Amino acid sequence: MTIFARQKVNKNKMKKIRAAVVGYGNIGKYSIEALEAAPDFEIAGVVRRNGAQDKPVELAAYEVVSDIRELKDVDVAILATPTRSVEAFAKDILALGINTVDSYDIHTGIVDLRRSLGEAAKASGAVAIISAGWDPGSDSVVRTLLEALAPKGISFTNFGPGMSMGHTVAVKAIDGVKAALSMTIPTGEGIHRRMVYIEVKEGYDSDKVAAAIKADLYFVHDETHVTEVPSVDALLDMGHGVNLVRKGVSGVTQNQLFEFNMKINNPALTAQVLVAVARASMLQRPGCYTMPEIPVLDLLPGDREELIRHLV
Amino acid sequence: MTIFARQKVNKNKMKKIRAAVVGYGNIGKYSIEALEAAPDFEIAGVVRRNGAQDKPVELAAYEVVSDIRELKDVDVAILATPTRSVEAFAKDILALGINTVDSYDIHTGIVDLRRSLGEAAKASGAVAIISAGWDPGSDSVVRTLLEALAPKGISFTNFGPGMSMGHTVAVKAIDGVKAALSMTIPTGEGIHRRMVYIEVKEGYDSDKVAAAIKADLYFVHDETHVTEVPSVDALLDMGHGVNLVRKGVSGVTQNQLFEFNMKINNPALTAQVLVAVARASMLQRPGCYTMPEIPVLDLLPGDREELIRHLV
Repeated sequence: MTIFARQKVNKNKMKKIRAAVVGYGNIGKYSIEALEAAPDFEIAGVVRRNGAQDKPVELAAYEVVSDIRELKDVDVAILATPTRSVEAFAKDILALGINTVDSYDIHTGIVDLRRSLGEAAKASGAVAIISAGWDPGSDSVVRTLLEALAPKGISFTNFGPGMSMGHTVAVKAIDGVKAALSMTIPTGEGIHRRMVYIEVKEGYDSDKVAAAIKADLYFVHDETHVTEVPSVDALLDMGHGVNLVRKGVSGVTQNQLFEFNMKINNPALTAQVLVAVARASMLQRPGCYTMPEIPVLDLLPGDREELIRHLV
Repeated sequence: MTIFARQKVNKNKMKKIRAAVVGYGNIGKYSIEALEAAPDFEIAGVVRRNGAQDKPVELAAYEVVSDIRELKDVDVAILATPTRSVEAFAKDILALGINTVDSYDIHTGIVDLRRSLGEAAKASGAVAIISAGWDPGSDSVVRTLLEALAPKGISFTNFGPGMSMGHTVAVKAIDGVKAALSMTIPTGEGIHRRMVYIEVKEGYDSDKVAAAIKADLYFVHDETHVTEVPSVDALLDMGHGVNLVRKGVSGVTQNQLFEFNMKINNPALTAQVLVAVARASMLQRPGCYTMPEIPVLDLLPGDREELIRHLV
């Protein structure tokens, strides 16, 4: 048998990775789709607060439970939970010796989470990969690479146009807001304009609500425009974008110019990244990692020499 | 002492990486500059065919020898040699237990080189990182990442405008050519136009020389324009560019759009990548690696938690 034929056979015989999806909001739904599309995964089940109660039709073929312990032979759990509950879920699941991946997105909390999950993962011989969405996540890989290509210089990450989850939640918390959408609009050099669309509750003055939004800590430092609309829902679109630029110095050579752009469906890309790092988690030594700490080749399925032939 | 202060002290005390530069053409010169600019390197010396004979003034401070065995305590050798002699140099140096890095750029030979240097490296407990320029090299990291972000779809790598070394050498080999420059012009979807500038030797017919160039295997499949000029040297510029695009599918979500652009000084970027992988070679287990097999964080100097705080 040729080496190539042998590799093909190995690939077909390869045991599939059994993944559980924990949480079934937007990211959870897109994660199921990405797992179904992946050649090397098997869905072990979905973990939801309500378990199998009111099971959505698209999950008919899968086990839906309220505790991951009810699922069999889970290799890796994709945490599609709110960011603030990632740590608790991850610690619980890592203790079972199951790998976890998440898209934890509070930039200032990443180092602490990495320490805490690193201890938990090492204690049970498991692997955690954290902050694996598109930013933090794949953008972090690009930012790191660009800093290596031009060690001196400035990088700017320009987001949008697209919906900011964090800013939208902040608007919704303001008294008098019935529904809200905060769009992030890039104006260059990492500076952003906020376009806020709201429905106002009856009996509230929309000018006063707008003033309260602009005074909120999430908005006070940015150019913010608030517009009252009849239906926020009619404006919702999950497209997003990034324009990441670096101008810098390689050695002593100035004016090296780099740019990375994306126009993407936000939850679909986050879910795809989660599935890719779930795969990569099977190849790392016990511990906790961010995406720049993982070889990008580990994100892909298939024979490594074939991948190198095709991609390097 | 706080953790942060302790890290600072550790960083200052850290032993510098001792690098040798093997070959002293364009890439070798820029490698010296990039090593001088790096905070964590020390130049062990330069290896040239003629050794210290006719030592260039900018190397006054450094040992210049004709055999790497004459240099002391070399951790890693940057191979700034022609691509075709990379394997022989690397095997010789790896056998001494010294890491090697190179920018070997014959795409079809990469997998074989990786096997051959992998054996050599493992035998002596050393590390080789191959094909580490910008393409193959940093572009390979981007191509791999984009395939993970959108597993279905097509990637196109558009090169230029910039000088193609391979095509220029091919033109120079044609009878009647006195001097040549082949520029690569991207026309989209990975298709390239070749703009060839030549000086013709006395007694040759420039139309016939142009026809011979267009019939050469390097050019026969591309739109090629040949122009006779009084001075090829007057046109030479080491700027180059890349536009790498991918349109693909994340999960089952279509039309995910990605783009990576660079406008760069070609040898300066190659040299900077070589220095970054020389650093990364110190962190890998014995063996041979291409860039997508190495965590991008390993390319950077400094404390890992600080880097993660800043870049993830």
